[in-house]
Amino acid sequence: MGKIVVVGSMAYDSVKTPSGQVDRALGGSANYFSLAASLFAPVQAVGVVGQDYNPDDLQLLKVRGVDVSGVERIEGKTFHWAGEYAGDLNEAKTLATELNVFETFKPKLPASYKTAEYVFLANIDPVLQLDVLDQVQSPKIVAADTMNFWIKTKLDDLKKVLKRLDILFINEGEAKLLTDATNAVSACERLCEMGPKSVVIKRGEYGFLLFTDGNFHALPAFPIKQVVDPTGAGDTFAGGFMGYLAKNDLGLKASSMGQAAVFGTLLASFTVQDFSVGALKDLTAAQVEKRHLQYKEVVSLFS
Amino acid sequence: MGKIVVVGSMAYDSVKTPSGQVDRALGGSANYFSLAASLFAPVQAVGVVGQDYNPDDLQLLKVRGVDVSGVERIEGKTFHWAGEYAGDLNEAKTLATELNVFETFKPKLPASYKTAEYVFLANIDPVLQLDVLDQVQSPKIVAADTMNFWIKTKLDDLKKVLKRLDILFINEGEAKLLTDATNAVSACERLCEMGPKSVVIKRGEYGFLLFTDGNFHALPAFPIKQVVDPTGAGDTFAGGFMGYLAKNDLGLKASSMGQAAVFGTLLASFTVQDFSVGALKDLTAAQVEKRHLQYKEVVSLFS
Repeated sequence: MGKIVVVGSMAYDSVKTPSGQVDRALGGSANYFSLAASLFAPVQAVGVVGQDYNPDDLQLLKVRGVDVSGVERIEGKTFHWAGEYAGDLNEAKTLATELNVFETFKPKLPASYKTAEYVFLANIDPVLQLDVLDQVQSPKIVAADTMNFWIKTKLDDLKKVLKRLDILFINEGEAKLLTDATNAVSACERLCEMGPKSVVIKRGEYGFLLFTDGNFHALPAFPIKQVVDPTGAGDTFAGGFMGYLAKNDLGLKASSMGQAAVFGTLLASFTVQDFSVGALKDLTAAQVEKRHLQYKEVVSLFS
Repeated sequence: MGKIVVVGSMAYDSVKTPSGQVDRALGGSANYFSLAASLFAPVQAVGVVGQDYNPDDLQLLKVRGVDVSGVERIEGKTFHWAGEYAGDLNEAKTLATELNVFETFKPKLPASYKTAEYVFLANIDPVLQLDVLDQVQSPKIVAADTMNFWIKTKLDDLKKVLKRLDILFINEGEAKLLTDATNAVSACERLCEMGPKSVVIKRGEYGFLLFTDGNFHALPAFPIKQVVDPTGAGDTFAGGFMGYLAKNDLGLKASSMGQAAVFGTLLASFTVQDFSVGALKDLTAAQVEKRHLQYKEVVSLFS
């Protein structure tokens, strides 16, 4: 069992979807990731919050055993994102991004974090991702996520991050943007030429495409009748994935990566069933295992 | 082993994709379907061609054992479709649709066709689909495909077809259009309320979502690095699917439907690797079986 350091946003999100809306509900990549990963392995979170951050929201992580000693609370307001999903819910329209305390964020890892074996650099400025990475002594597996904004504005820094990655998590559209590939399969190969040993393309309701050790592995998401809010699904996926890897500590073997991706997609299938971290905060290992059994039926080859 | 009657278009297609272009190459739903299905079971094709139709193109079906006695050759030109795919190849832009001999097509089934156990009504006017169905005596399994054009212009006739179906094959976008559902999972349930016992949502590179007997079953497509031309992939999928069903004659059992969908997606993965029927015309059962083994690795749960 390894321990995981995650750096990412801790935020309040205002989200509108065809199912309804929430105002300043708990969000942020570090929260989704930590709630998912902590079902499998110990997590240490790095982040920054403002004075308006509700202590109950930190408590939510603590009861899951997440170490929050690396979360700074500073003068100012917590990061706030407002977005809206229409139609098929596949893409959010960002209405507002107020960085607030995140604007001057300089991640500083407590001493106890520096020996972590697993590192997840959520989708933040690649300069900060590098900064965190420099503070971890000798991680076994380093993974990161990124987005179109950094691809367009900080490509050189992002390329430095890529060179140091074992695993890149990325959306299908962003994988194509970063590589000029016309399909996800060829994008995977090109991404690996940029550094990462493995690539996980996140495909939303279509699941994932994993490229590791020269092999492709793909499975769909668990079928959900009503997707309430897809926010955080990608970070939840990464949390389930990294949690599984850390728990089993088997390295980048195709079989453990494949199973990790299954747990990523299972965890994400809960997140989308409610707004904010509603479906994730009380989720138990038993509920995940029950859905795992259902999932095995859904993707069975019957042979 | 049952035999399959298919009615659909036999066409010449002019197609442009990022990989190149072809002019008046063999196409049409009945051709793609027949070439795929005939790898598994006997096929009887119903269609109409013009005087310009190359005898070699009928010969292609005959060497696969396809009965073409139901293909009429009449005065005029063969159906011609021209289209272009850009970007991610997920949607064709239609540049021209010249119905030609198809405009006055009245399908007439030879006596030997009327005892077929399996019927596939490819994407044609629902009035013609009904007409064919009325000519088959007592089929075990009736399946059909449709498209947005018929949903928008002949909804009442299409609804009559739906009521008589065991299996509906439909694209994801068209499933949503027909049901007003926002996702494929809920679309499946609503479609079954309209008649079909089972629904197969075709998802292109994301594979399929099958809803049968109250259960969902989903798997991705086989990963293809260079998709040359997606034209005909859906009809090939239906051909592999129906061919497998007819070969094994196990009815609508979830396990046989699931395996049928796997063979559909495998066959379709060949079609997209070349223009026209290039990859399908010489395809052997051994090649399909080889890819089947690779596919099992790709979608393995490793547990």
